[in-house]
Amino acid sequence: MAQSADMSVGLETGTAASSRDDARVRELAVELFDTLSSATGDGVGITRESYGKGESAALDIVEARARALGLPAERDAGANLVVTLEGTQPQLPFLACGSHLDSVPQGGNFDGAAGVVAGLAVLAGLRRDGFRPRRTLKLFALRGEESARFGKAYMGSSALLGRLAAADLELKAADSNLTLGACMDQVGVDVERVKKGEPLADPKSFAAWVELHIEQGPVLAARGLPIAIVTGVRGNIRHRVVECIGAAGHSGAVPRWLRHDAVFATSELVSHLDRHWRTLLERGRDLVITIGVVTTDPREHAIARIPGKLCFSFEARSQSKETLEAFYDLFLSECSLVGEERGVEFKLDRLLESSPAAMDSGWIARLRAAARTLRLPDEEMPSGAGHDAAVFANAGIPSAMIFVRNEHGSHNPDEAMEIEDFAAGVAVMRAALTEAAA
Amino acid sequence: MAQSADMSVGLETGTAASSRDDARVRELAVELFDTLSSATGDGVGITRESYGKGESAALDIVEARARALGLPAERDAGANLVVTLEGTQPQLPFLACGSHLDSVPQGGNFDGAAGVVAGLAVLAGLRRDGFRPRRTLKLFALRGEESARFGKAYMGSSALLGRLAAADLELKAADSNLTLGACMDQVGVDVERVKKGEPLADPKSFAAWVELHIEQGPVLAARGLPIAIVTGVRGNIRHRVVECIGAAGHSGAVPRWLRHDAVFATSELVSHLDRHWRTLLERGRDLVITIGVVTTDPREHAIARIPGKLCFSFEARSQSKETLEAFYDLFLSECSLVGEERGVEFKLDRLLESSPAAMDSGWIARLRAAARTLRLPDEEMPSGAGHDAAVFANAGIPSAMIFVRNEHGSHNPDEAMEIEDFAAGVAVMRAALTEAAA
Repeated sequence: MAQSADMSVGLETGTAASSRDDARVRELAVELFDTLSSATGDGVGITRESYGKGESAALDIVEARARALGLPAERDAGANLVVTLEGTQPQLPFLACGSHLDSVPQGGNFDGAAGVVAGLAVLAGLRRDGFRPRRTLKLFALRGEESARFGKAYMGSSALLGRLAAADLELKAADSNLTLGACMDQVGVDVERVKKGEPLADPKSFAAWVELHIEQGPVLAARGLPIAIVTGVRGNIRHRVVECIGAAGHSGAVPRWLRHDAVFATSELVSHLDRHWRTLLERGRDLVITIGVVTTDPREHAIARIPGKLCFSFEARSQSKETLEAFYDLFLSECSLVGEERGVEFKLDRLLESSPAAMDSGWIARLRAAARTLRLPDEEMPSGAGHDAAVFANAGIPSAMIFVRNEHGSHNPDEAMEIEDFAAGVAVMRAALTEAAA
Repeated sequence: MAQSADMSVGLETGTAASSRDDARVRELAVELFDTLSSATGDGVGITRESYGKGESAALDIVEARARALGLPAERDAGANLVVTLEGTQPQLPFLACGSHLDSVPQGGNFDGAAGVVAGLAVLAGLRRDGFRPRRTLKLFALRGEESARFGKAYMGSSALLGRLAAADLELKAADSNLTLGACMDQVGVDVERVKKGEPLADPKSFAAWVELHIEQGPVLAARGLPIAIVTGVRGNIRHRVVECIGAAGHSGAVPRWLRHDAVFATSELVSHLDRHWRTLLERGRDLVITIGVVTTDPREHAIARIPGKLCFSFEARSQSKETLEAFYDLFLSECSLVGEERGVEFKLDRLLESSPAAMDSGWIARLRAAARTLRLPDEEMPSGAGHDAAVFANAGIPSAMIFVRNEHGSHNPDEAMEIEDFAAGVAVMRAALTEAAA
């Protein structure tokens, strides 16, 4: 209520209040990020293995800090840390915020942790201000978001919502012979319930999921924006290997009209896809296309040999399933068009798909309004990288995300988030959660 | 004179004479090709290592057959086999024909050998017919044309004409620790003269070099032609490795406008080159372009990673030095254009060049006229592959080549030359040499 009142009063008072908040948020953030970094540093970056030692250490640090701030904290059946600010009507669905505390090996200190520290800052600030919400607010410090250790992402949120397959528990850790199930068991997950596909928390008990995360791309830095409101998490379609099969030949002895050159054919295909991509962007569609791996056959490598075979990977990502499907049709059509014209064949392996997840439009509007009230830009952007928020959204929980500007990308020790930008994101999250909880 | 007279008499007599010739040519060819194949077969194809056992065996076989046909044969200072049909004016520059007898490992029986057998058939036929030319005719069965063993091509013809560098004699054989110089010495080459760059035969003593060779590409088969007259041997320009340097990034998190994608950039470059290539062909230029090797960085391979680097090879071949230079300028200009537009850089390694060699226009006309007289197609075509004829031409000797149709390419055991097509090529060569020698 106090914060809510702050927001409705004149600009000066609001600014003074938010300056005080900002200072406290910065202080807590700097201290917690430092502690996390020292405890889980690996000499290069930080390592907080999913369902492992570094991740558990991070949960312990946040739990201790939450308790010191007067907030009750416990572990749920998924061994995630849950910090609570109880509402006056605890029977109502609660508002959840948070992110993950695991990391890739030699990763950065902010990927995931920023959202957990942000949630703690909000709950601690509201408690200090004596704000008693109607709805309970909960901070989740989730485990197991990164795919680096088990080859699977969103394990913590998926297990929480009964969406982890029993077969996934047999996945082997990259750094040992232990299975995911064994590692979960070691940190206290109720593996039997996970195996049965039983939700560890009732999705209906969530009124919303709000996640602050560093942007893992360069958009906010390039556009000079401290934060943005995420509209959705992109889904993707992928082929691990597309083979372009032409005919090898002597580079000097075969004229253009008799060639079936896999490199020229694939270059034409990629150029056509690029043109379609540009057109779709101009029409306002959300789309990124990546051919991450390209290689002629190393056994046949010769400067003077017309390449008879080229392999490449294919990926398209979009917030819109419709755009993905339409672009995939274009891709197939171009494969057959270029194939016919050049006398080559594009052979596709199994199509892999991952659904897009839309963020809740009501929450997008609420976060944007909060940003405007705080004199912050209220720009929208899609999330290209995957996040736990997509799992919550696809489980039917209204979900929202705030991106904070970050340089040098992510999954590396060079992540660079400014504390000012972080504090701006926290202020927006606090304002929106306060409004929704009141 | 007899043959020359045949050519000027009525069609029926000419046809009858050429039928008799053809039968004898076929008989000799079938027998010699069989003997060569049996003697140098390796279980997969045939292997006649340059300056090695298989090559020497092939020279011995041809030498024995030449002697049996009543033709004097000897080895020159380059250890090549030289078979002679002496003219009435032996002080005049002689007409030379022939080709090489070495092969790539597991190669085909006709690459090179066809030209030697053709020369022997011509000389033997003329001798049998009692034709005494004014100019001496010489058949050269050359050594060391293939680059497979020492990484260098045209060693035999280059040494013969004083054009083999002393440093080349230090090249190591792929199949042993022996140097080219040592292998040459073992088969009887006067290595000291080669080392000094001294021609083993005076280029001025050659009135012409005429070489029959199987086509190593698919053009004649595709166009339904038994033979063609070669207009020139293509030169080439090459870069072993061009690096396209962009910026790696998360495939989901970086939008199109912030990407520096090495694969999309290179695809655009290749597509532009393809368009320029098509335009130049439409304007009648001779050109082939090959990007034989393409690969993203295997250490960074990931479907979800924007490729920050792509390496590729570049080769252009043409009969015209001017076309090569003009196309290379286009290539550089496109590298900088696409580089600027996409924020990538194309880094080129050292440019490698090999000069084109034009065949002699007088000889082209003579061979075409002979083909027409023999009711054979007189089509011209460039040679994309390199041949000893280019070395002779670049030494100032009027040179000419006849291509014979051959399926399945070359440098493999599946070469397929029909004896009828071979006989047609021999008939044209015989007619032209007879005319020039008379």
